[in-house]
Amino acid sequence: MATVEWDEGAHGVRLIDQTRLPHEEAYVVCRTPEEVAAAIRDMVVRGAPAIGAAAAYGAALAARDGRLIEGAALIRASRPTARDLFWAVERVERAADPLDEAHRIARESIEACREIGRHGAALLPPRPRVVTICNTGALATVDYGTALGVVRAAHERGGEPFVYALETRPRAQGARLTTWELRRLGIPHRLIADGAAGLLLQRRMVDVAISGADRVCANGDVVNKVGTYPLALLCREHGVPFYVAAPCSTIDDSTPEGAAVVIEERAPEEVTTFAPSGTEAWNPAFDVTPARLVTALITERGVRR
Amino acid sequence: MATVEWDEGAHGVRLIDQTRLPHEEAYVVCRTPEEVAAAIRDMVVRGAPAIGAAAAYGAALAARDGRLIEGAALIRASRPTARDLFWAVERVERAADPLDEAHRIARESIEACREIGRHGAALLPPRPRVVTICNTGALATVDYGTALGVVRAAHERGGEPFVYALETRPRAQGARLTTWELRRLGIPHRLIADGAAGLLLQRRMVDVAISGADRVCANGDVVNKVGTYPLALLCREHGVPFYVAAPCSTIDDSTPEGAAVVIEERAPEEVTTFAPSGTEAWNPAFDVTPARLVTALITERGVRR
Repeated sequence: MATVEWDEGAHGVRLIDQTRLPHEEAYVVCRTPEEVAAAIRDMVVRGAPAIGAAAAYGAALAARDGRLIEGAALIRASRPTARDLFWAVERVERAADPLDEAHRIARESIEACREIGRHGAALLPPRPRVVTICNTGALATVDYGTALGVVRAAHERGGEPFVYALETRPRAQGARLTTWELRRLGIPHRLIADGAAGLLLQRRMVDVAISGADRVCANGDVVNKVGTYPLALLCREHGVPFYVAAPCSTIDDSTPEGAAVVIEERAPEEVTTFAPSGTEAWNPAFDVTPARLVTALITERGVRR
Repeated sequence: MATVEWDEGAHGVRLIDQTRLPHEEAYVVCRTPEEVAAAIRDMVVRGAPAIGAAAAYGAALAARDGRLIEGAALIRASRPTARDLFWAVERVERAADPLDEAHRIARESIEACREIGRHGAALLPPRPRVVTICNTGALATVDYGTALGVVRAAHERGGEPFVYALETRPRAQGARLTTWELRRLGIPHRLIADGAAGLLLQRRMVDVAISGADRVCANGDVVNKVGTYPLALLCREHGVPFYVAAPCSTIDDSTPEGAAVVIEERAPEEVTTFAPSGTEAWNPAFDVTPARLVTALITERGVRR
């Protein structure tokens, strides 16, 4: 399984359709920046590093057609929050060979995830009981994963991790994608409702929390999937380390703090699954975890406390 | 609409089937303690005060058939956490006229809710923006509601409340029941994912949180729907009052603290809605909010800080 992969024969970027998982393993090929922007917006591809790689290929497709400025603008307008998207488009814009640069971004991303896993696994106790939010595995990246990559690295080293996966409403990436990945990897786990994180921490059922990040601000504030901040607050209350695992491409030194980040608000229909028709909803996709709640940031360069 | 009502002609207790709301307004009549116990266990009737009244009628039905001891035991075994269930069965057991006592419990419950509403509404600022969890309205009680009764009382007094309703996974009582009630009452509201409570508090979008309770311990710890504790913790972090609205029947002076309460764990299938088939889940129905996080307890007797 490759989350984001150049398809030479099809002249496009091939994405696993994450809106159809776990029930169907289907792929789509995007051949234009419009198609890539739509795939990002509709969350066919999601997860900051995966979005970054897809965006890079989208910009490369635009460059191939001689309309890089227009294509890059389209892709930048697809989703506002994840730092990797803007970083990747900018790299392709500046490159002499756009497609080659997109390939390099994808390769580097896999490398970065493996290094994040290596650094992160060293922080964990034996048989760690880990709580995670959203999906931060291979599906959220080009391959391997960030927070789930740390769990995977621990598993590969014989560390015997056990994962509590938060469902992560409204799009249920924890239920749909994380459990699917963990089963494929043979890592034991339990799914829990988002609200059950409180009792989980109260009962001392976890040793550590690890989340990914969509944007890390200059002051260390972490913008990530909505629900991350309550989890971090619970961790502080119960003395459980809260780690954030993300590549350096997610760090945005030009944004001073979380309050300055545009938080995407998505369609109410994502939230009203069980509600009477016509119910109004507020559906922010991210929240801000203040730097003081983050025990350490794990990047490919090491562990920053 | 009556949540729990004696049906003289049918010789049973009539319940609105809450598993079928909001899409269908159907009623079931329970004529035996077995049927009442099943309705409680399967959450045809839910919400501590509503469970209490249903349990009282179940015990009265057992007494009518000359098997009160057996019937009361069945009902006590239906769900372990809500205090009202045990309190109501005990009252019926001690009564000279069991059915009359069940009627009295139901009447008193409505009265208590109206008094809770009156005391609670007095605590709210004008145009209060309120966050609630689960369903604590007429459906959770015999009528009127506890936490939602406070909102309703404020609305009836022209206080113009606005409600953010947490979806409350896994059974989505907030999405299914609270929004349904609020619309009928004409109270403006928005549904939010459970994880969105963090950003809601961060952005100062609410003035007050009000929850119900399934059991209030001697030390003031509150056992309530899973997810209540994280919400209370967020409220403390952001200086927002966290009120608990519940009748005195929910107060359990024989249980010293929350850690001593049996937390019901329900079927994993409630959580695995979006997950691959066969996914394992942990599904506790309640959590414990420590007394220190509770700004005040609102009962029919007044406000206890």
